[in-house]
Formats: sequence, structure tokens, C-alpha cells
Amino acid sequence: MREVGIGVAGFGTVGGGVLSILKHHQREIEARLGARIVVRKIVLRDVEKSRSVEVEQGVITTRMQDLLDDAQIEVIVELIGGTGEAFELVRSALERGKHVVTANKALLATRGEELFRLAAEKGVDVYYEGAVCGGVPVIRTLREALASDRIISLYGIVNGTTNYILSAMAEKGEPLSKALAEAQHLGYAEADPTLDVSGGDAAQKLCVLAQLAFGARVKPEEVLTEGIMELEPADFAWGREFGYALKLLAVARRVDGNGAGAHPSHQLEARVHPCFIPKDTLLAGVRGAMNAVLLDSEALGPSMLFGQGAGAMPTGSAVVSDIIDLSRNILARSPGRVPLPPAEARVSLRPHDEIRCGYYLRFTVKDVPGVLARIANTLAARRISIAAVQQREQSDEGGAVPLVIVSHRAREADVRDAIAEIDRYETTVAKTRLIRIESP
Amino acid sequence: MREVGIGVAGFGTVGGGVLSILKHHQREIEARLGARIVVRKIVLRDVEKSRSVEVEQGVITTRMQDLLDDAQIEVIVELIGGTGEAFELVRSALERGKHVVTANKALLATRGEELFRLAAEKGVDVYYEGAVCGGVPVIRTLREALASDRIISLYGIVNGTTNYILSAMAEKGEPLSKALAEAQHLGYAEADPTLDVSGGDAAQKLCVLAQLAFGARVKPEEVLTEGIMELEPADFAWGREFGYALKLLAVARRVDGNGAGAHPSHQLEARVHPCFIPKDTLLAGVRGAMNAVLLDSEALGPSMLFGQGAGAMPTGSAVVSDIIDLSRNILARSPGRVPLPPAEARVSLRPHDEIRCGYYLRFTVKDVPGVLARIANTLAARRISIAAVQQREQSDEGGAVPLVIVSHRAREADVRDAIAEIDRYETTVAKTRLIRIESP
Repeated sequence: MREVGIGVAGFGTVGGGVLSILKHHQREIEARLGARIVVRKIVLRDVEKSRSVEVEQGVITTRMQDLLDDAQIEVIVELIGGTGEAFELVRSALERGKHVVTANKALLATRGEELFRLAAEKGVDVYYEGAVCGGVPVIRTLREALASDRIISLYGIVNGTTNYILSAMAEKGEPLSKALAEAQHLGYAEADPTLDVSGGDAAQKLCVLAQLAFGARVKPEEVLTEGIMELEPADFAWGREFGYALKLLAVARRVDGNGAGAHPSHQLEARVHPCFIPKDTLLAGVRGAMNAVLLDSEALGPSMLFGQGAGAMPTGSAVVSDIIDLSRNILARSPGRVPLPPAEARVSLRPHDEIRCGYYLRFTVKDVPGVLARIANTLAARRISIAAVQQREQSDEGGAVPLVIVSHRAREADVRDAIAEIDRYETTVAKTRLIRIESP
Repeated sequence: MREVGIGVAGFGTVGGGVLSILKHHQREIEARLGARIVVRKIVLRDVEKSRSVEVEQGVITTRMQDLLDDAQIEVIVELIGGTGEAFELVRSALERGKHVVTANKALLATRGEELFRLAAEKGVDVYYEGAVCGGVPVIRTLREALASDRIISLYGIVNGTTNYILSAMAEKGEPLSKALAEAQHLGYAEADPTLDVSGGDAAQKLCVLAQLAFGARVKPEEVLTEGIMELEPADFAWGREFGYALKLLAVARRVDGNGAGAHPSHQLEARVHPCFIPKDTLLAGVRGAMNAVLLDSEALGPSMLFGQGAGAMPTGSAVVSDIIDLSRNILARSPGRVPLPPAEARVSLRPHDEIRCGYYLRFTVKDVPGVLARIANTLAARRISIAAVQQREQSDEGGAVPLVIVSHRAREADVRDAIAEIDRYETTVAKTRLIRIESP
């Protein structure tokens, strides 16, 4: 039987999943592929550390160079993470004409462009289903299933840690600190959860998705990114009254730009932030550590992919499917069968000031006459139209009361200006909370 | 630029969608494929009928043979439906070494085996994403994304017509006849809706999916199939009290068979029937004419695909994606890259009597002492364990009252026997309604 030799760099959670699936599903994979996938080398840092999957002793090495030098290795599977050593490994592999499977979103989000260009030059493939939403086949769907279509918008719950935390806050009324501690205890959040709770992880994934869906070149630092750390149980309670669920959404949306002439140019909104969505939508029903991506495209209309976004086996299964797919290209001598995203950007980024959506504004104001009128005037002066208002009675007259205003679709810069002005009133006693609203 | 010649048989709803997408997305498709897809011939019955998409006059023909004889046609797109003429066309195309794209679930469900065998012999491809759930990429996901995994179960809402009807009944409390008339008025149901409302359409789709997911050879007539025509508003109301939504589900599930020895053989449950599912699940949130397939697999765990299951553009986009994928195989000279499902069945069908699930039983009984006790005894004698009971008071003593019993997981034959016995009691005044319960 023909063999395809692979080399695996990294033997952490995902590496363990990959090796376990290759071992336990070996018979089926061989039947489907008509060839055997052979793990020739595994690079790891600490040879002594105990592993969940047994591997032959001769396969283990601590030198990256061993993967590159092994002529029998046709595919390098990069699972070490980060953008330093991983970049060097992938670049060197491509240089030598080896194919690459990676689950490294940070690498692709920040340096994908040069790697893709190099792969195209060398006529080799880069597969990366595991980089976004674990086993959810969103990369494959964008690259192949929707090859005939034009994507209009993409709304993703792409970070399981924050979705777990927000679900716990919504369902149990917990403060963020408690939900976060729980997520850490259960292994859904890391000891240092910054990358997740800041929205940074979701922004990296959005860059990878936006490149495929829109041909956009967006860097993570260009994405409007707001995390979840400032959310309070009160926001969930208010949202519920208005019929909303609260999610951390990654949003990429094609909008008309300001291009003159017959063909208006398109721009892309790219943003990650807490977002209210109607509670009876499918995305609102995505609970716990699950992931989902809702697409809207011209021909297909709305569609959604849902599944586990992280973990040894889900991400491992995505990586192994990539290895199988790549092996098919190798066996059929058809590398580059599905081209990588083009290097030239097809859309430009819309400035964050120009974003338009609905807004939930929670003011904390003194309970004195005229406050609502003044706020309403300030909003009206900036063409921010009010869709709903709620104010709760407080027991002590003259004390601070929450006043919640939900706006129709408005321009981001106008809303920010209005808030800045309102926050300067002597009747405003705390910083106004802003949460965007979408109806995906 | 290299050209890939295609011939299209059938210019109905889906045909119109395919030609419209090929025309309006031509530029992007060429950019992605590096080649031009050229429609060389379109076969239609009535040349005079007006069409939504304009095509060149020379391309139109009424003779199937013209597609087969045209040496420049490498891919035949079969959109005529049915299993007679369509079978002849596809068989002849494969015989001549032409690749085939089809959206014909009936053809694949009933005669897929011989067509796939012929395609493998001739070294050509058959693609059929459009055959099941329109533009939802479930075929591609099963064939490729989950190639590394083992599917445990599949629960699908695969018929938009019945899902529209059941959604209307649930949301508006309408009787079936009214919801059906509405669906017909809106174009979601045909003038003769039999194939949809009987569950027959869903059973065909289930056969196509079960072949890919489990390597099972199941014929539509072997699927336990119950339609929706007997459902009453009362069932929705009762279900709601127990926390259930009511859907027409297509279910395929791998279960342990009775195989002796070290390796227990597997069997497959294959069934289509109305089904109660917990109302807070994602599947329960799939409303209107939308489709969804929920998979559970060993490595990935639960995952779901959701989208429009029918219509010119959704199904058209699936067909065009298949044409693009096939063109990639042609350009890379790698036909048969992803093998068709194997001819030998890997699992056998579990006899319907041996199916196990929860049951909702709605008895209509005389309001006299001892009725509940007798029913409970009959169920207990067949090891049917009661999870919940509800009986409503009626105004006139001695009149007929509904008595609803929800069982734990029980064996289908035992439940049917118990109902047969209970329906013979003189205190039973109407046929007992049975609805299965699942927790997908």
C-alpha cells in the first residue's frame, strides 16, 4: 500500500488528539484513502513528559530540523502555536516543497499572506481547518462549498471560553469573575485568560475567516475589538427585558463603500465585541463552550455551522481531515487543487467610525427632572433615533438610577460623541455602558 | 483560458438557479478556478416556455442524446428528476466517461449503488451536494470533513415543506389542513404534497445520507416512515407542557447489534417520523422551511449544519459548487479523488421492532375509575416505564378524556403491543396516538 509520510511538530492537546485519531481510525482512513498515513517523526520539547498516546520510540525527536531533513516526510503538521518558531518551521517546510497542515490561527492571521504566497510559488498546499472553530468545517465550507457564491456577512461565536462565561452569566445570573473562575476550574479557560476575554483570539480567527470569505487582508490589530470583562449581570437582565441574548460576536460584513462611479466599491466591517441578538435566533441558542458561524450569502441565503470549537479530539479531527485531503492531492498529484486566498485585497476595511448598528446605552443618572429630555435631545442632535426606553424606579428619590435606551441603527462615531457629551453632564454619575445590537 | 464544457439536462427551478449563478458569478468562478465553465448544451422539453435566465439559442436542444454525443461536454448536470429518464441519462454519461453532477435524491436513494459502481469502473466522478438539503453542505462534510471520524448518529430536518407546516401549527396553533394550504399558497408545498407530508421525500434523503455516514445500503421502503398528516394541535399543546417541540425527523443511528464474539456487530436504525425533542435544543429552533442536520461523531462530538434546503438559488449554488469541484478534478487530472461510498454495506438495518426511544402516548379514555391503573399495568407488563402522566379534567363526568403518558426509553414492539391491547379496552374510545421522543 502506498504511504504518505507526515511529520508532526508539537505533542500537546491537539497533537495528542491527532495521533490518537490516526491510530484508532487507521483502518477506516486507509479504506477511504487507499493509502497509509505514516507518522515518521514527532518533534516535542520535553521527551520525558508522559503522553496520552503511545508512540514508537524512534519517532520522537526534539529537533525541528529532523522534520525538514526527512525526505520521506511529505506533509508537516504544525501544532506548536505562536508566530516565531512556528513561522520558521512552516516557511522552511514550504521552501523545501513540503505541504503544511496547521491549526495556528495567530500565525495565519498575522503572517498568512507571505506563507500563502510562498506556498503558491512552490506549488504546495497549506490546509488549516483546525485553526478556526476546531472541528467545525467552516474553512472547507468557505473554500469549497461556497466557491460558487458571494458572502454578504459572517457572524461567529468563535471563542468557546467567552461563550461559556457569557452562558453561565445569562443562565445563572453570575458575575463575570465567578463565571470565569468556573470556566478555569473546568478547563474551558486558561490560567491567564487574557487572549480569550479580551476578544483577541476571536479577532485572529475573524482575520482568517475574512480572508477566505471576502478576500480581505485584515490584521488583528485593525479589527475593532472589545472584550467581555466589563459586562455586568445588569446588562444581561436588561437585555432579557428587551428580548435579547448577549454574545461575544465576531462580525465581518460587506457594505457599500464611498466609491464613485457606476460600480460602488465595497468595504468590510470587521469587529469583535459583546453584542445583543434577538433571543429566539439560532445563534442565541449556541450555549456553553460551543462555536457557531452564521453566514449570509447571495445564492444560499442564511446558513450556519455549529460544533465544538476546541479540544483534543474536535480540533484533532479537523487536522486529520486536512491530512487526508492533502494526501489525496499528493496521491492524485494535484497539489494546489483548491487555490489559497488571493494575495490582493478585494475589499478595504471600513473605518470603525463609520460602523452602523443598533446600540444599547445604559446611563446611570441622577433621578432629577429633565435628565431624560436632555439625553434625548443630545441623541437627536446626532440623528440617533430611539427605539425603546426603560427607566426603573428607585426607592430613594434623587439617587442614581439606571436609564436604558435602545437605538435604531446609528453611526458609531455619532453614538460615541453623544456618550462623551452625556458623560460630562453633572447629572451623569457613572460611565455609560454601550453594547452593540445586531439581528443576524 | 482552459474551458470545461458542461451539459445541463433540465431547465426547471434548480436549472434556472444553476444557469443564473454560472452567469452572474462568472468572473469570480473563473478567478477561483483558473478556467472557464462553458454551458455547451441545455436539454429541455418545451423550447417555447419562457425562462428566467436568458441563454444563447444554439445551446438549447430537446434531445438527451445531444448531451451524450457532444465530445466537448465533460460534465453532465442532471436536473430532470425521477428515476427513469434520469437513470438512463446518468448511466449513459458514465458509460461514455463523462462526469456527473446530480441533485436527484430519488435516483441516488433507489439506484445509487449501480451508478456509483459504474462510475468507479469508468474512473469518473458523481457529485450530488444538491440532492440533500439544498445548499447545506452536508454531503461534502460527510465525504470530506468527517473523513477522519466515525459518525454515531444523524438527526435531520431534511424536508422544508413539513418543517414549515409543523412550525405554523406550533406557532399559530393551526390545524394541519390550514397550515398545509398556507404552505401551498406560499409555494413551500406542491399541489400534490404527498411525497413531502408522507415522509417519503425525507426517507429518500436519509438513504443518501446513511450511505455516506455509515456505509449503509438502505432502500427508502426499508426506512420506518411515518408522515405528519395525523398530527393534531392537541399534540403540540401537550408536547409544550412537557417541554417538547414537534419536528419531522430523519434519524439514522448506529447501535450495537446482536453479533456474538469479541467484536459486536453494529446495526443501523433508519427512520423518519414526527418526533418530540426538548424545546431548548438547536434543532427545535430550526423553523419555517429551513433544514438542519445534527451529527454526533466520535472525535468531533455534536455538530450541526443549517440552511435553506430547497429553492432555485440555494440548490443551484450547491450544484455549481459541485461543478467547480469536479472541474478542479478535471483540470488536475485527478478524477475519483474522493471515492464514492463503498458498495459493500458496513452495517445492517436494525428491525423496526427493535427500535428503542421514548414514547408519548395520548389515550382517549372514558373517565371512569380504574382506567389509569389498567393502562399502567399493561405498560408495566411489557417493561415500559412511565416518565410522566397527565390527565385533564373534563366537564362532563363519564365523558371521554385525554390521558397522556410519556415513557422512558422502551422497545418499539413492546409499545405497539401495549397500544394494541389498550385500544381493545371498552374504556378506550379512540385510537391511541403515538409520537416518538428523542433527545438529540
